[in-house]
Amino acid sequence: MLAVFWAEEGGLPASDRGLAYGDGLFETILMAGVRGTLVGYHLDRLVRDAGRLGIPVTRAEVQEAYARAASHYGRSRADTRWVLKLILTRGAGGRGYRPDPEMTPNLLVSASAAPPGIPSDGVAVAYSRIPLTVNPLFAGIKSLNRLEQVMAARELDGDVFEVLQSSREGDLVEGTRTNLLLHTTEGWITPPRASLAVAGVMRDWVLERLEARGEIVIERPLLPEDVTGPGCRAFYLLNSVLGVVTVRNLAGQDLPVDSGLATICDPLETLE
Amino acid sequence: MLAVFWAEEGGLPASDRGLAYGDGLFETILMAGVRGTLVGYHLDRLVRDAGRLGIPVTRAEVQEAYARAASHYGRSRADTRWVLKLILTRGAGGRGYRPDPEMTPNLLVSASAAPPGIPSDGVAVAYSRIPLTVNPLFAGIKSLNRLEQVMAARELDGDVFEVLQSSREGDLVEGTRTNLLLHTTEGWITPPRASLAVAGVMRDWVLERLEARGEIVIERPLLPEDVTGPGCRAFYLLNSVLGVVTVRNLAGQDLPVDSGLATICDPLETLE
Repeated sequence: MLAVFWAEEGGLPASDRGLAYGDGLFETILMAGVRGTLVGYHLDRLVRDAGRLGIPVTRAEVQEAYARAASHYGRSRADTRWVLKLILTRGAGGRGYRPDPEMTPNLLVSASAAPPGIPSDGVAVAYSRIPLTVNPLFAGIKSLNRLEQVMAARELDGDVFEVLQSSREGDLVEGTRTNLLLHTTEGWITPPRASLAVAGVMRDWVLERLEARGEIVIERPLLPEDVTGPGCRAFYLLNSVLGVVTVRNLAGQDLPVDSGLATICDPLETLE
Repeated sequence: MLAVFWAEEGGLPASDRGLAYGDGLFETILMAGVRGTLVGYHLDRLVRDAGRLGIPVTRAEVQEAYARAASHYGRSRADTRWVLKLILTRGAGGRGYRPDPEMTPNLLVSASAAPPGIPSDGVAVAYSRIPLTVNPLFAGIKSLNRLEQVMAARELDGDVFEVLQSSREGDLVEGTRTNLLLHTTEGWITPPRASLAVAGVMRDWVLERLEARGEIVIERPLLPEDVTGPGCRAFYLLNSVLGVVTVRNLAGQDLPVDSGLATICDPLETLE
């Protein structure tokens, strides 16, 4: 049985495994008043990845907690965009790393302001010096183990909106908080799901929409020269709170800019 | 300036980055009353690895917090072994993954019972199905990102004391909570520091003692056949709370048993 904690009433228990080991997951959902964007995608992912980690939670429990939180925080934010954060942990206790099979999960809910808007003429990004190491068994899971992203995010400054992290093999995997999508003369290219640290729900939604429009979507390793080469039509960062972010410059090189994708894939369309 | 929190008075703030991203470190120290084992090793590692992550904390701050906690919990545990846990986080807040340069670290201290004693005739271990993926920039850091160890520890049961995790290349890296040391006819072999998920202080201390005795210590990748082959004299697991643990059986195969190392490297000798 899921226990719900409200951030403004204090945090999780001191012995919670989310703090001790990063033994849990999280979602950040863009909200407008009591309504949320991509809600089904977020909650489906949370329950699916909890299953991959053996954290026992049902879709109905998560749905009910989401609805309570959306109402609780959203009523006083009727005309405002804000962000709902859900942190799901395996629970408190156990002997060291080994979980107690009887423990029950905890869910911490909190609200924060939406981030500032993105310049419509695009952003500048750089290469990160922090490589990504993805355990294939946990690929794509938005777990609480995010030290690689934190250390890469320390490289951000006012002029660099995002840094791109590479695998050990040198292909571009993702930004600290964004998945990558390249529009080329051969179609839309994005790194394979099995290679990702975090498989974003915005990525899922955009790829579905492109495929529904008959576009060619190719999941394959993305090389820097794919982005900087002559086949590039546009390069995008995807994040469910930020939406589609157009990249105008990569590590000092200007890229072709086409902001059309942001128009046809605006997560605010999905408010429910 | 380090802020100290006591587990029995509640946990860290709800917005602490230790929970949000595993953005922190921890130490578990075997104590007897108000005295601790391998204290200098533990506190040196905590401060050194905090520096690697850019968490600003001084040795003096950590020493003072340790002394307060040892006294606070140890006075009522005068004739008892117990475990002091220190969780150091980067602090609370920031915008997403990106830390706020002004934030100050938090330290959560807690006490728990010492684990049960280890059978002196050795333990049985198995191979884990969960590989280890170590980011070379963070190798050895006892960070709060421990999901790989948690998932491997779910494979433990009453008969299997520890499971051994391998790298992508197939060499044995470490147990969920132990470093590996093999005594062979050519010397003492242990996986290289740069390959480790967690570089244990017990490993450091034992290697120093062996070298001080003129023993040959070789840091190189450890293969399963090194352990199961004819050159094996004894195989050990190292953990600062458990001490030296002799392995008598690996995945069903009996190994030569020599419990001499446990006698010459007992962390309780270091009580101070």
